[in-house]
Amino acid sequence: MTPMRIAGHEFTSRLILGTGGFPRLGTLDEAIRASGTEMVTVALRRIDAAARGSLVDVLDACGVRVLPNTAGCFTARDAVLTAKLARDAFETEWVKLEVIGDERTLLPDAVELVAAAEQLVDDGFIVLPYTTDDPVLARRLEDVGCAAIMPLGSPIGSGMGINNAYNLRLIREGTALPVILDAGVGTASDAVLAMELGCDAVLCASAISRAEDPVAMARAIRLAIEAGVLARGAGRIPQRRYAEASTQHEGAPE
Amino acid sequence: MTPMRIAGHEFTSRLILGTGGFPRLGTLDEAIRASGTEMVTVALRRIDAAARGSLVDVLDACGVRVLPNTAGCFTARDAVLTAKLARDAFETEWVKLEVIGDERTLLPDAVELVAAAEQLVDDGFIVLPYTTDDPVLARRLEDVGCAAIMPLGSPIGSGMGINNAYNLRLIREGTALPVILDAGVGTASDAVLAMELGCDAVLCASAISRAEDPVAMARAIRLAIEAGVLARGAGRIPQRRYAEASTQHEGAPE
Amino acid sequence: MTPMRIAGHEFTSRLILGTGGFPRLGTLDEAIRASGTEMVTVALRRIDAAARGSLVDVLDACGVRVLPNTAGCFTARDAVLTAKLARDAFETEWVKLEVIGDERTLLPDAVELVAAAEQLVDDGFIVLPYTTDDPVLARRLEDVGCAAIMPLGSPIGSGMGINNAYNLRLIREGTALPVILDAGVGTASDAVLAMELGCDAVLCASAISRAEDPVAMARAIRLAIEAGVLARGAGRIPQRRYAEASTQHEGAPE
Amino acid sequence: MTPMRIAGHEFTSRLILGTGGFPRLGTLDEAIRASGTEMVTVALRRIDAAARGSLVDVLDACGVRVLPNTAGCFTARDAVLTAKLARDAFETEWVKLEVIGDERTLLPDAVELVAAAEQLVDDGFIVLPYTTDDPVLARRLEDVGCAAIMPLGSPIGSGMGINNAYNLRLIREGTALPVILDAGVGTASDAVLAMELGCDAVLCASAISRAEDPVAMARAIRLAIEAGVLARGAGRIPQRRYAEASTQHEGAPE
Repeated sequence: MTPMRIAGHEFTSRLILGTGGFPRLGTLDEAIRASGTEMVTVALRRIDAAARGSLVDVLDACGVRVLPNTAGCFTARDAVLTAKLARDAFETEWVKLEVIGDERTLLPDAVELVAAAEQLVDDGFIVLPYTTDDPVLARRLEDVGCAAIMPLGSPIGSGMGINNAYNLRLIREGTALPVILDAGVGTASDAVLAMELGCDAVLCASAISRAEDPVAMARAIRLAIEAGVLARGAGRIPQRRYAEASTQHEGAPE
Repeated sequence: MTPMRIAGHEFTSRLILGTGGFPRLGTLDEAIRASGTEMVTVALRRIDAAARGSLVDVLDACGVRVLPNTAGCFTARDAVLTAKLARDAFETEWVKLEVIGDERTLLPDAVELVAAAEQLVDDGFIVLPYTTDDPVLARRLEDVGCAAIMPLGSPIGSGMGINNAYNLRLIREGTALPVILDAGVGTASDAVLAMELGCDAVLCASAISRAEDPVAMARAIRLAIEAGVLARGAGRIPQRRYAEASTQHEGAPE
Repeated sequence: MTPMRIAGHEFTSRLILGTGGFPRLGTLDEAIRASGTEMVTVALRRIDAAARGSLVDVLDACGVRVLPNTAGCFTARDAVLTAKLARDAFETEWVKLEVIGDERTLLPDAVELVAAAEQLVDDGFIVLPYTTDDPVLARRLEDVGCAAIMPLGSPIGSGMGINNAYNLRLIREGTALPVILDAGVGTASDAVLAMELGCDAVLCASAISRAEDPVAMARAIRLAIEAGVLARGAGRIPQRRYAEASTQHEGAPE
Repeated sequence: MTPMRIAGHEFTSRLILGTGGFPRLGTLDEAIRASGTEMVTVALRRIDAAARGSLVDVLDACGVRVLPNTAGCFTARDAVLTAKLARDAFETEWVKLEVIGDERTLLPDAVELVAAAEQLVDDGFIVLPYTTDDPVLARRLEDVGCAAIMPLGSPIGSGMGINNAYNLRLIREGTALPVILDAGVGTASDAVLAMELGCDAVLCASAISRAEDPVAMARAIRLAIEAGVLARGAGRIPQRRYAEASTQHEGAPE
């Protein structure tokens, strides 16, 4: 696979792993290694300073880049503040920007998201926004200077997969930025489909951390992503309305 | 992956490759190696004796088992006769039984299929029938002594994937035989979905042989199948109607 | 709507109603009137003679034709016997032929179904077979002399709607007989979709009888069927990948 | 059907008709009558003053309310200006607010839409915004004082139907305002599904005006909407994984 570039940084792995929901730190460690990921997200707000310490130790030992996120923020103001705290805590300009608009679905708030993205870009952050599957919003986020587009497939933790493949295709066609599917993945088939639709990467949290066997699922999704990238590059056959025999003429060299 | 057993024979690979439709024999050779397959199907009827020779040489060199098929047969009588000719030509009791009921869709003819399966089993063949996605028909084929069930996802060469996942699940629940998805696969996501639904293997012909890059697609589908097996075994998260945050409590060990 | 012809008999209504599952006979009476149906199915086997009497009184009062069915039969032999008993009991050559192959899904048994259909046609019955959505099987049923094809959308009483619209289209294209969707309808949208796919009629039982308000659902499905027939005849717009403004040129007469 | 109330005004019909795309004014006239609609949208910008005159005559004769729209506007500023011109031209405070973010898909621009809605509500307009299927955006539009929510099913004129039924359900659950499906309807089944999902009304333009027979399609969609409302009220049966016989006990009164 060709590497993916975000803000000038190259990633060989196309899987970003969320660190939430793992039963134990040891399982997280194993899942990171099985997944082959090079970057993991960490919710600044959701972990206390002490726990953060041991978490960071694990991530350091795995040699993965930390992408702090602003999970739990409901306004641009709150998200910007959280991003700044995360910059200090994790010593990185990178931030996965979440501005949530609804508690029950954790769907993004388009208007607050754009406002927060604009402020953070102005302040020198590398901003990767968690967004709806709205192609117009994606272009607006590109216009304000975000480094990638992270649309959802379905709500966080829902495991419903990709509810609107059509919109994901439009986002892919409409932006030169990396497109990273960011929520809804439930299992391997969701990940391969995302890549076939043209996504550059997939972010998984619950699909892996809450699977019965997180390490096996980490490996499954890693393979699924690789399969999807290969399949997209291999030029699939068109869908036909009727059948076509694989061998049609007698005497063909098969 | 645990091996799949068909008629007492163990297969490590869960991909069966059709040999039709490849642009050149050299590409077939490469695709076989990239796919990791251990068994390929060959249409007795569709290749003349001379071409068969060079094809068999390639297959021998790859060390794969040959599964002759009765492609192009429209009656039980014709299929049985073809199976017997194939037994002589390829020196194997194994046969992928196809009895086609319609030229345009190449869909199986349920009634003729059961009749042919019965005769071939009685005559000592190891019968792997290409069938519709009908769970009752699948059980009938098991009852007459077939060695596996090979339901379609959609018509041969159509690339439409799996039209009726529900029926595939019912077939899986209703039989102790290996279930091998046998037609309709267009790309990697179809293959991973088949495995997640509980299939034991996937047969691909056109999806690989007619892709723009058959060798890359062979590798993609190989990985997809492995991803699907792992994902099924890993115990996926349930689908939820609303969101669930990956990290829910402050202070959790992440 | 143009009438539908089955075996030389004209029907203005495109809805056939199952009589099972109604909470009271009075509700059945009202639902028949609300649905506008001209033919209802009755399970000979499932009702005792006494209950049958009062049911027949209701049906007589409504002026609807009775279509006995062979629900609960698992072999051709059993179905043929039941059909003959029904012919005597209801004084009609018409029979909705059901030969079930599985208790849990109530799916048809293709092989037994064809055998039973053949015998009943030979014996002078007007046979309307409940069948899978297999287009090849549908043609075989036409060949043995059935009067209509009654494919399922999904299992009886499941309310899953149409699991494989593609197969229904193939059945429609492949037969000159009336095609009547016979199982799986859960609500009005399933019925309108069936008609848009080219079905000539819809049979509903549980969708109406077990709805919270059977009479309202009877009326809903009646309207849905009419809407579907009209829409199919009206020549729908094609599906486009991108948008098309409804008014494109300034100054157009709108 | 109980009437739908928008801004204190009652509508018996649940179908709003777009006036664009009709081949002739006479067909528009007939389609309005066949549809039973009480309100039609008119694009101020897309028709010149002279044509507008004869159009308004037809609408007057039909006795339908005119809902001017801001089709073709790409900024809040442009949309607000167009709305004001429309108020003068059509002597109504009502406006269907469109602020488009992309020429190829005609998808709404969330940020500009909210800004325009806010200004128009402040200026006394009754604002019905054409929006994406984003539930958070819907609530924001409610918060600024819009009179209804008009989410798309898929792009204008695409005829793809409802791409994301899940999001439509969330919008329905999250607002007390009328929800009117506003784009993507291609045929009757799309309309009945919208109503079953809980929409209060459907707006159709191309689905009717560009059908081969616009008057027949107007009638089809009218019936479909009525069927959907009835079906939703009738309490449909649940979807089951397996079958359920319509009559289960011998001797039951059916």
